[in-house]
Amino acid sequence: MQRFVNNPDFVVDDMIKGFVKAHSDIIVHSNKNKRVVKYKNAPVKDKVSIVTGGGSGHEPAFLGYVGENMLDAVAVGEVFSSPPAKAFLDAFLEVDSGKGVACLFGNYAGDTMNVKMAVNMAEDEDVLVKYVVATDDVASAPKEEKHKRHGIAGGPLMWKICSAKASKGASLDEVIETAKQVVDNTRSICVGLSPCVIPAVGKPNFTIEDGTMEFGVGHHGETGIKVEELKPACEIAKEMAKTVLDDLECNKDDELIVILSNLGSTPIMELYILYDEIEKIISSYGVKVYKALIGSYVTSLDMNGACLSILRVDDKLKELFDMPCYCPALTIN
Amino acid sequence: MQRFVNNPDFVVDDMIKGFVKAHSDIIVHSNKNKRVVKYKNAPVKDKVSIVTGGGSGHEPAFLGYVGENMLDAVAVGEVFSSPPAKAFLDAFLEVDSGKGVACLFGNYAGDTMNVKMAVNMAEDEDVLVKYVVATDDVASAPKEEKHKRHGIAGGPLMWKICSAKASKGASLDEVIETAKQVVDNTRSICVGLSPCVIPAVGKPNFTIEDGTMEFGVGHHGETGIKVEELKPACEIAKEMAKTVLDDLECNKDDELIVILSNLGSTPIMELYILYDEIEKIISSYGVKVYKALIGSYVTSLDMNGACLSILRVDDKLKELFDMPCYCPALTIN
Repeated sequence: MQRFVNNPDFVVDDMIKGFVKAHSDIIVHSNKNKRVVKYKNAPVKDKVSIVTGGGSGHEPAFLGYVGENMLDAVAVGEVFSSPPAKAFLDAFLEVDSGKGVACLFGNYAGDTMNVKMAVNMAEDEDVLVKYVVATDDVASAPKEEKHKRHGIAGGPLMWKICSAKASKGASLDEVIETAKQVVDNTRSICVGLSPCVIPAVGKPNFTIEDGTMEFGVGHHGETGIKVEELKPACEIAKEMAKTVLDDLECNKDDELIVILSNLGSTPIMELYILYDEIEKIISSYGVKVYKALIGSYVTSLDMNGACLSILRVDDKLKELFDMPCYCPALTIN
Repeated sequence: MQRFVNNPDFVVDDMIKGFVKAHSDIIVHSNKNKRVVKYKNAPVKDKVSIVTGGGSGHEPAFLGYVGENMLDAVAVGEVFSSPPAKAFLDAFLEVDSGKGVACLFGNYAGDTMNVKMAVNMAEDEDVLVKYVVATDDVASAPKEEKHKRHGIAGGPLMWKICSAKASKGASLDEVIETAKQVVDNTRSICVGLSPCVIPAVGKPNFTIEDGTMEFGVGHHGETGIKVEELKPACEIAKEMAKTVLDDLECNKDDELIVILSNLGSTPIMELYILYDEIEKIISSYGVKVYKALIGSYVTSLDMNGACLSILRVDDKLKELFDMPCYCPALTIN
């Protein structure tokens, strides 16, 4: 295993130590829980706090989205594994200003269970927490069961927009309402070309045969919609774009914010090759790209693949997206 | 070859098309040369223009550093191959405001030859161009022959700081002077764990055996200082940090801007694991990190490895680094 690790069982703690050192201008480690990192100015007076959490291995998610006009805190789990309820709870308690906490996370059984427990525990401490789960992965359940879908690389759009909403002085219910609007209007699809290796395991826990691709692969290697022969980039891009545009039922004159995220080891050059065709398909629907983010936004260790996420925006969501922010994973000025 | 490509011979043109679409808010394609991209507002009135260029495969370098208070134009070469003189020339001519052009690029024989030719051709068109070559790679030549060293991931520091200098109204000579100061104070070292694959070749053009690492590998797989047994991350990080700190002759109370760049396929988690130890070593020298950038800044397709770059800064360089900028690869607010 050709990797930069010390003890493979301690990669998460080692990573967090490096992360808080690298970004000490904006981020601090919780004093109470070594698996919680927070915005250095949190709690921000009279502001609804925004918290998320999830398994590690998806860097820069989740912890890279903590910062100014971004997340207030993140609960950090083991690789591809939910943080414990206690980590979510400690994150809530550390950053609540008295205005309540919005916990905005991706739909996975472990995360949902732990967040629900943490929300109840927080109630005992008189901290009000409401939550919204992202369900952007169109490959993980049919449209009729959208609530069962997983959350993947669309998450940063929810965090960015809801953090801005909170910074503008919105109430907890208003932030939750905005989060639901974002979730309702976000769709994602991944394509995997090669699997990833969890350091403590030392070999891939799923396979993608050379010469094939997994259309709709999940962020932890979950089986996708179909295994196909590896196609030229333009055909892959076309299939990705049509899948999300059709599922979202995009209409002429809709406007989108687009994220094309590296799943890990894909050369950045190839993301742009994909994007050339993605934009063509979006245009062919009469839909306009408002902003496009291309790079590593939510990854899966060293998985070779890409995730296309689209968010349909109205003027209010555009204004919230454009509000300046500063965090390790995304700066807008 | 598990890659997102159309025709492997046309990856650069396909990439540029996607790039200018994704970043049309800030970047435009040259009308005259399909291998030149430029800042949409260039030429900026009364400003010295900053241009670079180099082979593709290093994305987000070079073209991702074009933008506001950043580069005015970039000449784009084939994968791992210098742009032709004509591309540099067209970049110069497209963005010169009459105040002259600073061409700031990495030291490789092909790039240097083409830039020199382009500078002469520009003179015939009454456009004054001066150039500085980055020589940050300590592994590529001994210290006594620093002028022979290659330019690697330290480049973005020169571009950021000199672009800010130009935006503040400096003359061409002042910008060139600043570039020289940056080059004199920048050092980089790479460690490679696995090679990369050029799409048109289809297999690695060099090898790194499993269980070993190439200390000092170049950005195109150039042989490094030594091949060693693969060590724990903390030992690799220690060796990387000591190499650059000693070569720069860092003294107590020096301040550094640090870039730890992914060479391509390394999980972001592992960059932070390396950084934890890098920061410890820097601190042990009595030196302070002013800012740290961790992520994909200059890559080599899908090479598995990391590049540590350090720049010793004084108050003037810090002020220039902190000037707000906006480009696809780096936003500072």
